[in-house]
Amino acid sequence: MPKATNSDHAVRLTSLRAQLSEAGFDGFIVPRTDEHQGEYVPSQAQRLRWLSGFSGSAGLGVVLAEQAAIFVDGRYTIQVRQEVDESLFTYRHLIEEPASEWLEQKVQPGMKIAYDPWLQSEAQVKSLREGVEKAGGELVAALENPLDQVWSDQPARPSSKSMPYDMAHAGCSSKEKREEISRSLKSSGADCAVLSLPDSVAWLLNVRGEDVAHTPLVLSFAVVHADGEVQWFVDNEKITSETLSALDNMVEIAEPGALEGRLAAFAKAGKKVLIDPATCPERVATVLEQNGAKLVRAMDPCQRPKARKNPVELDGLRASHIRDGAAMVRFLKWVTETALTRAGTDDPVTEMEAANRLLEFRKEVPLFRDLSFDTISGAGPNGAICHYKVTEESSLPLNRDEIFLIDSGGQFLDGTTDITRTVIIGAANDEMKDRFTRVLKGHIALATAKFPKGTSGMQLDSMARKPLWDAGLDYDHGTGHGVGCFLGVHEGPQRIGKNVSPAPLEPGVFLSNEPGYYKAGEYGIRIENLMIVREAGKMVGVEIPLYDFETVTLCPIDLRLVDRTIMTAEEVTWLNDYHARVRRELTPLLDDEHKTWLEEVTRPV
Amino acid sequence: MPKATNSDHAVRLTSLRAQLSEAGFDGFIVPRTDEHQGEYVPSQAQRLRWLSGFSGSAGLGVVLAEQAAIFVDGRYTIQVRQEVDESLFTYRHLIEEPASEWLEQKVQPGMKIAYDPWLQSEAQVKSLREGVEKAGGELVAALENPLDQVWSDQPARPSSKSMPYDMAHAGCSSKEKREEISRSLKSSGADCAVLSLPDSVAWLLNVRGEDVAHTPLVLSFAVVHADGEVQWFVDNEKITSETLSALDNMVEIAEPGALEGRLAAFAKAGKKVLIDPATCPERVATVLEQNGAKLVRAMDPCQRPKARKNPVELDGLRASHIRDGAAMVRFLKWVTETALTRAGTDDPVTEMEAANRLLEFRKEVPLFRDLSFDTISGAGPNGAICHYKVTEESSLPLNRDEIFLIDSGGQFLDGTTDITRTVIIGAANDEMKDRFTRVLKGHIALATAKFPKGTSGMQLDSMARKPLWDAGLDYDHGTGHGVGCFLGVHEGPQRIGKNVSPAPLEPGVFLSNEPGYYKAGEYGIRIENLMIVREAGKMVGVEIPLYDFETVTLCPIDLRLVDRTIMTAEEVTWLNDYHARVRRELTPLLDDEHKTWLEEVTRPV
Repeated sequence: MPKATNSDHAVRLTSLRAQLSEAGFDGFIVPRTDEHQGEYVPSQAQRLRWLSGFSGSAGLGVVLAEQAAIFVDGRYTIQVRQEVDESLFTYRHLIEEPASEWLEQKVQPGMKIAYDPWLQSEAQVKSLREGVEKAGGELVAALENPLDQVWSDQPARPSSKSMPYDMAHAGCSSKEKREEISRSLKSSGADCAVLSLPDSVAWLLNVRGEDVAHTPLVLSFAVVHADGEVQWFVDNEKITSETLSALDNMVEIAEPGALEGRLAAFAKAGKKVLIDPATCPERVATVLEQNGAKLVRAMDPCQRPKARKNPVELDGLRASHIRDGAAMVRFLKWVTETALTRAGTDDPVTEMEAANRLLEFRKEVPLFRDLSFDTISGAGPNGAICHYKVTEESSLPLNRDEIFLIDSGGQFLDGTTDITRTVIIGAANDEMKDRFTRVLKGHIALATAKFPKGTSGMQLDSMARKPLWDAGLDYDHGTGHGVGCFLGVHEGPQRIGKNVSPAPLEPGVFLSNEPGYYKAGEYGIRIENLMIVREAGKMVGVEIPLYDFETVTLCPIDLRLVDRTIMTAEEVTWLNDYHARVRRELTPLLDDEHKTWLEEVTRPV
Repeated sequence: MPKATNSDHAVRLTSLRAQLSEAGFDGFIVPRTDEHQGEYVPSQAQRLRWLSGFSGSAGLGVVLAEQAAIFVDGRYTIQVRQEVDESLFTYRHLIEEPASEWLEQKVQPGMKIAYDPWLQSEAQVKSLREGVEKAGGELVAALENPLDQVWSDQPARPSSKSMPYDMAHAGCSSKEKREEISRSLKSSGADCAVLSLPDSVAWLLNVRGEDVAHTPLVLSFAVVHADGEVQWFVDNEKITSETLSALDNMVEIAEPGALEGRLAAFAKAGKKVLIDPATCPERVATVLEQNGAKLVRAMDPCQRPKARKNPVELDGLRASHIRDGAAMVRFLKWVTETALTRAGTDDPVTEMEAANRLLEFRKEVPLFRDLSFDTISGAGPNGAICHYKVTEESSLPLNRDEIFLIDSGGQFLDGTTDITRTVIIGAANDEMKDRFTRVLKGHIALATAKFPKGTSGMQLDSMARKPLWDAGLDYDHGTGHGVGCFLGVHEGPQRIGKNVSPAPLEPGVFLSNEPGYYKAGEYGIRIENLMIVREAGKMVGVEIPLYDFETVTLCPIDLRLVDRTIMTAEEVTWLNDYHARVRRELTPLLDDEHKTWLEEVTRPV
C-alpha cells in the first residue's frame, strides 16, 4: 500500500471512532494477524498497518474513544517509534505491558469493547476479556469488522491461482496423507478437524498458491474428516483446472462463505470436532459450541506429519540447497571482493545493492520461484538489528574492516532455503574473531549433537549458547525454527529455543541452526544452516534410540573471522570436513573462477 | 505397619467393596498421597499400602465391584509385582496406561465412582472425571472416606510435638517472611492463600516437627493473608509452649476441623483466595467456590521464597555439609577397606551393614537429627535400581571388583544433606571407568555452567547428559532437585531435568547435581553433590546478568574409576581443585589416619 502520513492515520482513527460510536462500541481491538494467524498477511488484512502505520510482523492495537495504544515486542520498539505517531497511539510492550493490563486500567465500568472473532484465537480473546471484565466492562464479538467498514479503499482479498504440487516434489499423495490424519483423528477421539492454517491445507491437499508474499499458499480453510473426506473452503477463482484435476473425489470445494453453515451442520450432526486452540479463530469455536458440537482441543493434526519430511521431500531439500549454495558462493565472492574495492569511494556497495544482487544470483537458479522472506542485509550497526529490513533510507555502505551479515532464502519448487552468512569486508579485529568463533562453536555443538528419541529443542538450545554464556554473552532470539518444503520458511511445531517446544524432534524434521551475537551500534553475527533430524549412524554400545542432525546448507563460513586457538580439535575437524563437503558438492556447479575462489576460502585450517 | 499377607489384602478388598456397595458407590479411587501431597505419608494415611501391599512412594489404586487395578510408574514395575497380588489388582503403568483410560474402558454407563476430595488436587480429579464420564459414569466426591470406614485398626493421625526453628538457623523471622508473601499476594490480586504443603507452613512460621519420617514437618494447613495474618490449622496436641511463645500475635491457632468453616467464611466475605492447583486438595477449591470466593490459581506463594535460601541458611548449609563430608570420609575409608578385606569370606560386608554403619558415623555428627531419606545402598546389580531400598532379604554382599553405590543424607539442625558416591571394591574394568568418567564429565559440565538470569533447569539438563548421549547412553531420572534447609530433601519449584521446570534458577536456590548411568543386572553409577545458585564472579566483558553454581558437598570422588584420557584439561583442573578443597575443608575434622587416607584419595591426577 502507498505510504500514509500521520494526518492520514489521524483521519482513519477518527473515522473508526465514529463508526464504533455508531455501532454502540466504546473500543475496538486491532490485531496484526488475519484469520490464518500467519506471518505474511495480504494487504487486504493489514488493518493495523492501515490504521497506525506500523509495518512489523507482530503487534496489536487497541482503540478507545479518547485514547489508543499499540503493543509491539522487543524487535520493534525502535521501528514503532519511527512509523507510528505518538500523539495517536501510546507505545506499549506486547509481552511486558500486555493489552489486557492496559484495558484493565483504561476501560470504565459498563464499556463495551469490540473485537473481530475471526482474527483472534480463543486464548488471545480470553486474556483480553479478563482485562476488560476486571475493569467492569464487557468484551463483545463484532461480526462485522468496524474497521473494514470505514476502510474505503481496502484492497480485495487475494485470489491468486492455485497449482497442484506434484508427486515428484510432494512425495506422498493427498490420499495417503489423509489416511495418516484419519488415524490421528481417531486416536484423539475426534470425527473431524478444522484446518485454519493455510500451510496445513497446502500440505494436506498438495496444492500451492501465491496469495501472500514469500510463502506459496492459498489462503483458505478446510475440514478434514476421519473417513478421509475434506471440505475445502476456498474462493472459486483460485481453483484452476490443473488443481481440480489433481484433487480426488473425496475433496469437496465450497465457497468460504459456506464455512459457518457447514460447521453448524457438523455440530448438529453430533460430530466431535478438533480445533487447535493456539491458532483457530474464536468464531469457529463459538459456532461449533453454539450448535452443540463436542470440541477436542488439540494441535492441528497436520502439523507434526507436515514437519516430518518424506524421502522425496528430503531429496528435494538437499538438491535445492546445493543449487542455492552455488548462488550464495557467487554472491559471497562478489560482495566480499566488490565491497572491498569500492569501500571508501563515492560508490560503495550498499546493503540494498547487495540484497538486490543476491536476488539476481538466485533468479538464475533452476526451480526458483520467490525469496522465502525479505532479505536481511545488515552492514556494521544494522547487522545488530536482528529483524532488520533494508530500505532506501536505512541502507548503509559496506565499509572496510566492518562486518556484513546477510540472512536470506529462496522458495524453490523442490525446497525452501534459509541461510545466514557473516563476512568481514577487509580484516577483522580480535573481538570480532572471538565473538564469531564463539557463535561458530555453538553452531558446531548443535550440528554435532546426538540425543535420544523424545528430546525437544528446548533441551538442546543451551548447547548452542554455552560458548557465549561462558563469556557472559547471549543472543535474544531462538536458535532454530522449522522450515517447510516449498512452504513457510517458519513452521512449527518443533523449534530450538529457550521456550518450551510443543513437540519432540523426530527423524525428517527440518530445522535451522542459527546462533548469533549482536553488539548494538557496531555489528551483528549469525551463522545459519538448515539441518534434518535423522537416526544416528551405527555406533558400538548404543543403548537408546539415538538421533542426530544432517546439515543440508552448503556454503563457506568466513575463515577470516575464525580464531582457531579457542576451538577444540573436534571443532576444527568439523569445520574442515564441512568445507570439504561444500567444495565437493558445489564445485560441479561453478565456473573456474568461482572454483578457485571456493578452493581458497574453504582451505583446511 | 506389620507386613500383611495376600489373604489379608483379599479380605480388605472385600470389606471395602461391601462398604462401597452399602454407600451406593460402584468404585473408589485410592491414591498414595495424603491431603498434603507429600513424599512421606504418615502410617494413618498409607491407604494404598494397607489395601494392596504396595509400599512405593507414588501410585494409585482403583477398585470396582469386580476388578481392581494398581497404577505405578517405571521405578516400581518390579516392586509392584513382588508386593501386590496379581489376582487382586491388575498392574498398570501410571503414565503410559493412566487410570483415566482404564476407567473409560471398565466403567459402565450409570456407575458412580467415588473419590476422597481431600486426597487429590483439582488437576488429578479432572483427568479421572474425564475417563469416567467418557464411559457414561459419574465421578462423585465422598466426604467420608469408605476405606477409612473399614480400616478398623487405622493408626491415629500423627501428633508429634512441634518446635520453633530459631533465628540462628532460619535467618529470617516469620514476620519478615509474611511481609514478602504479602507483597506477592497483592501482585497476584489475591487477599489470602491456602497453604496445604506442610513445608510451606514450616518455612513461613519457622516451626518444625516430627509427623513423618525423614522430613521435620508438622502436618497442617494454614491460610496466610495479605495483611500478614495467619490462621494455622493444626492439632492442638502438637503445639508446645516453646512453639507458642515463638509465634507472634498475628498467628491464630485453630483446630484442623475448623478449616472448612473458615474457608467458607472468607469466601462469603468476598475474599479472593489463591490456591495452588498442582497441590491443593480439590475439597478446598470446592468449599471456596460453593461459597462464592473468587479463586486465583497460582503457585503456592511460599515455594519460590523458600527455595531462595537466605545468607544464614546458606552458612548453615555449608557448615552442615562440611561436617557431613567428614562423616562420609570415615564411612568411605571403612567401606572400601573393609569390604575388600572381607570380600569372598563367609562374612562379607553387606549393603545393609554398610547403610547401618553410615548411620552410625552420621549419628556422631553435631546437630544430626535424622536421615533425610532411606539410604540407597546398592552393591553390583542392586546399584542399577535407581530407587532401591535395601531390606534383609535383598541385601547383597559387596564383592571384589564390583561397584558399590551409596546415596544418603542427613537432617541436621542447620541443613539438609544428600550425597551419592560410587566406589569400586577392588579394581574397575575399562567399561566401568568409561561410564563413570562420562557421568563425571556431565557432573562437571553442570557444576561449571554459567547461565543468564531467567534460565530454567530444563535448559541446563542436557549439559549433564551430553557425554553419555555422545556414546548412545542416558539415565532415566532427573539431574537435579531442590533441597530444603532442615526441611524436605526434595522440594520445588526449581529442578534440573528433561521436563519443564516451573521456575527459573535464582541466586540462593539449592539443588542437587546427580547424573548417573545404570547397567541393568550389573551396576549403577551416580555422582551427586548439592550446589547453590549464585551470581557469577566478575569477568571482563560480561553483558548479561550471569549466574553459576557453588558446589557445597565435600567428599572425595573415587579416582580408581576415572579415565583421565577422555577428560579435557579443564575437567581435570576442576577435579583437582575440587579435591584440594575437600582436603582443605575436611582435614580439620579428621584424625591422622583419616587425614592420610584423604590425602591419598584426593591426590592430583
